[in-house]
Order: sequence, then C-alpha cells, then structure tokens
Amino acid sequence: MAEDADSGRTRLEWLDKDECLELVASGGVGRVAFNSPTGPVILPVNYTMDAGTILFRTALGGPLDTDLRTGVEGAEFKVAFEVDRIDEARREGWSVLVRGGAHHITGEEERAQAAATGLETWAGGERELFIRIAPVEITGRRITRG
Amino acid sequence: MAEDADSGRTRLEWLDKDECLELVASGGVGRVAFNSPTGPVILPVNYTMDAGTILFRTALGGPLDTDLRTGVEGAEFKVAFEVDRIDEARREGWSVLVRGGAHHITGEEERAQAAATGLETWAGGERELFIRIAPVEITGRRITRG
Repeated sequence: MAEDADSGRTRLEWLDKDECLELVASGGVGRVAFNSPTGPVILPVNYTMDAGTILFRTALGGPLDTDLRTGVEGAEFKVAFEVDRIDEARREGWSVLVRGGAHHITGEEERAQAAATGLETWAGGERELFIRIAPVEITGRRITRG
Repeated sequence: MAEDADSGRTRLEWLDKDECLELVASGGVGRVAFNSPTGPVILPVNYTMDAGTILFRTALGGPLDTDLRTGVEGAEFKVAFEVDRIDEARREGWSVLVRGGAHHITGEEERAQAAATGLETWAGGERELFIRIAPVEITGRRITRG
C-alpha cells in the first residue's frame, strides 16, 4: 500500500511484513535498542536471521548482556531492532523495525545451534553470548522520490 | 585511546567526546530510540546539529510526538540517538551514541530559531514539530582492521 505523503515528489510507503522479512533476511548490521537503568541505549550489532529470529553475539558482562538481564527474571526483555539502507545523497531508502523479546541463549544445545549459523562478530574480542530476538511486531517503510 | 579487542586484526577503539561530536556534526541520518508504552522503538530521522543539540523534525501526533510526551509533564523524556557509518564489505566503521532529554519545541521564538537552520524532512509530509535532544552523554567507538 503506497500513499503520497507529500504534495511534492516524496513518497512514503509502508511495507508489509513479508517485504520487511525479505529486507532483513540477508543479515549484516542492525541496531538494538533497549531501556537500560539509565534510559534508552542504541548499539549497532551484526546479525543473522535464524529460524525466523534475529541472532547476534555480544560480550558476556557487557551492556547488552547485563542491561538485558535487568528485566523480570525468566521473562523476556523487550527490545527494538532496526535495519535500514538509506541513500543520503538521494534522500531515499527503507527501514525495518522489529520489536520483541530478547532471549539469552544459555542451554548447550541451543548454543550449539546458534553457533552452527557461523555468525561471526565484526567487533572482535570475546563475544561468547548469543542473543535471539523473537519478532512480535515487524513494520517498515520506504521513502522514494519520483 | 585504542586497544586491541582481538588477538587477530580487529581493532576496537573508543572515541573521545570531541571525535564523536566531529563525526555527528555533519548531520544526515541518525536513529532515535525511546521507550514507548509498549516497549522500545527505533526510528530513523534526518537531523542537523544546532547549538550543540541534535535537531530533527517529526509529525505532530505521530509516535515521535505522542510517545515522547508520555513522560513526566514538564520533564524531558530520555532518548538515545545513534549515528554510524559502517562498511559492511570491510566490516569496519564507527558509531556514536548520544543520550539525553528530548525537548519539544513549542515557543514561537524557539521554533523560528529551529526553522532557521533550514532543516528539511526527507520523509516528506507535514512534519511541523521540531524536537531537540540536549546531549548528556556522548560515546563512540570505531572498528578498524589492520
């Protein structure tokens, strides 16, 4: 569904869930946001899609570990995950927002499955913790110029 | 201050505040995260730096308007703002995280000052609300490969 958001040549289009999933499927870099004890934080991570979830790695004891544990014990901690491709020169592009619970992968079998995706961490260092985001809501939009 | 984050060739470097400010000074696209009533949200916006603050435009009544108003009346609503440039092919790049309060610009004089920056909205449509983020904390990191 597309609608003109402007009287001019800018077109803002909302993407359906399938388009969004297709756009984020190739992996690469996304950004995780969560509400830390001192307010919202955004951190870029490289990720892969695995079994319909967003999978990324982080350091044990780092902010993405400890802050995501401050939620109710046993419950998932709500996060937002965003991927975009924006051409700043043309001022057009798309963004997809995935919202859902972040889940620390602790079980051995589950960890082996995550490691089997071959996901490397671009930031280097010891990033032995895998975190999965199970999407609850997926929305996206695209801006084009005619 | 640089430190090897890996035994390999990946170098993770923390940027000081001046470097961060220099990187975000040119404006372009950043991402705002805030804690909405239903959990964290991330939205890309185009912004400019004005008088040491992050300035962007949004639609009156849109999520960046209404959700940012759900904080304590009169108080600033805590947000995170992130800018990055990441070369996915080379797996290197930088990111800067600005944290602080979001302030709706409502006064006429203040609005005229914001409009005078010439900031346009790439998304088109009526985006008559200016929002400023006054940085409280600015951090950044850079990943390079040797």
